[in-house]
Amino acid sequence: MLNFEFHNPTRIVFGRDTIARLDALLPPAARVLVLYGGGSVRQNGTLAEVRAALGGREVREFGGIEPNPTYETLMRAVALVRQERLDFLLAVGGGSVIDGTKFVAAALSFTGEDPWTILETHGANVTGAMPFGSVLTLPATGSEMNPTAVITRTETAAKLAFRSPYTFPQFSILDPSKTFTLPARQVANGVVDAFVHITEQYLTFPVDARVQDRFAEGLLQTLIEIGPRAVAQPEDYDTRANLVWTATLALNGLIGAGVPGDWATHMIGHELTARFGIDHARTLAVVLPALLRERREAKRGKLLQYAERVWHITEGTEDARIEAAIRRTEAFFESLGLPTRLSSYAVGTEAIDGLVAQLETHGMTALGEQKEITPEVSRRILEASLVPAA
Amino acid sequence: MLNFEFHNPTRIVFGRDTIARLDALLPPAARVLVLYGGGSVRQNGTLAEVRAALGGREVREFGGIEPNPTYETLMRAVALVRQERLDFLLAVGGGSVIDGTKFVAAALSFTGEDPWTILETHGANVTGAMPFGSVLTLPATGSEMNPTAVITRTETAAKLAFRSPYTFPQFSILDPSKTFTLPARQVANGVVDAFVHITEQYLTFPVDARVQDRFAEGLLQTLIEIGPRAVAQPEDYDTRANLVWTATLALNGLIGAGVPGDWATHMIGHELTARFGIDHARTLAVVLPALLRERREAKRGKLLQYAERVWHITEGTEDARIEAAIRRTEAFFESLGLPTRLSSYAVGTEAIDGLVAQLETHGMTALGEQKEITPEVSRRILEASLVPAA
Repeated sequence: MLNFEFHNPTRIVFGRDTIARLDALLPPAARVLVLYGGGSVRQNGTLAEVRAALGGREVREFGGIEPNPTYETLMRAVALVRQERLDFLLAVGGGSVIDGTKFVAAALSFTGEDPWTILETHGANVTGAMPFGSVLTLPATGSEMNPTAVITRTETAAKLAFRSPYTFPQFSILDPSKTFTLPARQVANGVVDAFVHITEQYLTFPVDARVQDRFAEGLLQTLIEIGPRAVAQPEDYDTRANLVWTATLALNGLIGAGVPGDWATHMIGHELTARFGIDHARTLAVVLPALLRERREAKRGKLLQYAERVWHITEGTEDARIEAAIRRTEAFFESLGLPTRLSSYAVGTEAIDGLVAQLETHGMTALGEQKEITPEVSRRILEASLVPAA
Repeated sequence: MLNFEFHNPTRIVFGRDTIARLDALLPPAARVLVLYGGGSVRQNGTLAEVRAALGGREVREFGGIEPNPTYETLMRAVALVRQERLDFLLAVGGGSVIDGTKFVAAALSFTGEDPWTILETHGANVTGAMPFGSVLTLPATGSEMNPTAVITRTETAAKLAFRSPYTFPQFSILDPSKTFTLPARQVANGVVDAFVHITEQYLTFPVDARVQDRFAEGLLQTLIEIGPRAVAQPEDYDTRANLVWTATLALNGLIGAGVPGDWATHMIGHELTARFGIDHARTLAVVLPALLRERREAKRGKLLQYAERVWHITEGTEDARIEAAIRRTEAFFESLGLPTRLSSYAVGTEAIDGLVAQLETHGMTALGEQKEITPEVSRRILEASLVPAA
């Protein structure tokens, strides 16, 4: 096991009818900005429920945070908080709204000249943040229980991440029934996003971290068991509850503590989103299988463990078991409606040079747990993702 | 899944050579009381390492905290902190030292007349605590990452627990190499203590909490895999690392969030310790198998899941699989040197009336996840624990 630090002070309030707990969670005299996205929380009544729970507090609203939240939009929220002298932020939405709220919180306490440097330093220059909480409506990113945010600057087409010890939500309310009205596509995407968050902390090389391995395997098995039903039966509370808690635990620091990580699938996927606008989770479904095949030797020990413990594959040669596990993974993604080949998005060979160049531009030249995923390896992964499954 | 709240702000600093991190974890001007137990931390050099890491800070020491820490001893520590105007507590030891430090921290901030009422109210009247951290030397109780403490008052022979949101350690340093010098018996006891903490949150009734079940099963499987080696090979770092992290996660609130709990094994065991001085973990090894047999119907669903997923027992009738799983559990405890029958401690039928009377005196009249473990059921459990294994 590798040395690690684990610290996660976010309070999780989980279950039915928990939005009413807001009154006890916020300071009585808080002046609140409620941040949200495209308006679905207004249509489905969640926003009204939040406002009712906030009682007589001063409340302002800021809607319109984008699926990939932009610096430009968020700086308008910063201005509104200052103008109205608000002192508590409440994100109501999914990962994008919570990510955006983290940036607003950090920018409000920022003492330097240019808040964009928060992203450029990946959070190293953050020295405080306005207190904030969240009401989660979309299980996927884990932002509700971690300090990380990904922000896009439209002006320069830059998409950067930051994290800071100050940008953990104080609390997150996770009421699985608030996910019932989500479009099926977003739920399926959330299952795959969480699945890949887990494999990125699990499919590396063994360091005898048995608890982390068992926890990762348990989360993967849960997603495999509940994924199709979570998409098909939107009002099955227990299935949604298991999905929400799994997605949160997939990226709250616990399963990654003391083990190597390989975030290359996310990094390569980001370029596909940036270039072709493919949904984030859908890029992961395309990249992961090709990456696992390309990196089969480096990941051999863990791939065999994955085949046996997650997919119960015990017959055949090592290579056959690994290939079978990757095919089961592909079949799982496809069963949720996510293609596993770039060809499904009408992206062909002609796109590869540009994608590899983007990775180089963004400094993504030594990815993976061994830093061996050079641009040339990324090229092979992308090429393999074009090939239809045999 | 049941509704739950989960909040655990303790920072875990895990790994080799992490005691040196103390300098960064404590305020630079902290005036520190180091609390410890019987002196083994002085003999094995851990105390000297702690003092060196604290640099030039004012440091006082308070040794002699007992295996079942007493109010009388701890109130002397409270007096010392006040007299020397110290402002930070650092526990160096196992669960007893950390439990005792939690009480000292709460008593120092207590504004009522009698600090013993902290125990009588189980922590409800705690409104603050002096900041404290821990350096863990014995994996077992999980006290290093939870807010609970069990304190004994010698004068009245009362043993009570308290917990409060204020009594989480600020940080805990977990260096597995600091456990190398533990006596084998304490390590074996720690494995069983952690094992039973897990079963008490897992072997109840199903509530479709898949993540919690998988995590509990993963922790149990890890203990089964590493337990014997952790005892036999004291300097096997990775084995001890897995034991330490498993014992912490067994009782930090995570696997118990959203599921029922059955703490009857601990409650009945406490009476055996109080009456006969049997090591805490050894009482659990005696009570758990008898309790599982007695409560087989109420726990049927989870016992079958335990048999299949933890012990890989899939053949035979339901009752045969349940009995086989309990026998494997007994064999595991025995393999670590812990007897599973009261007769091994020369306790016989004549003791049962007194033990049941103690449970009644302490209000333990409706134990278990269904509150169905009445004194009469506890009697049957104790009687069954007398019978030698067939």
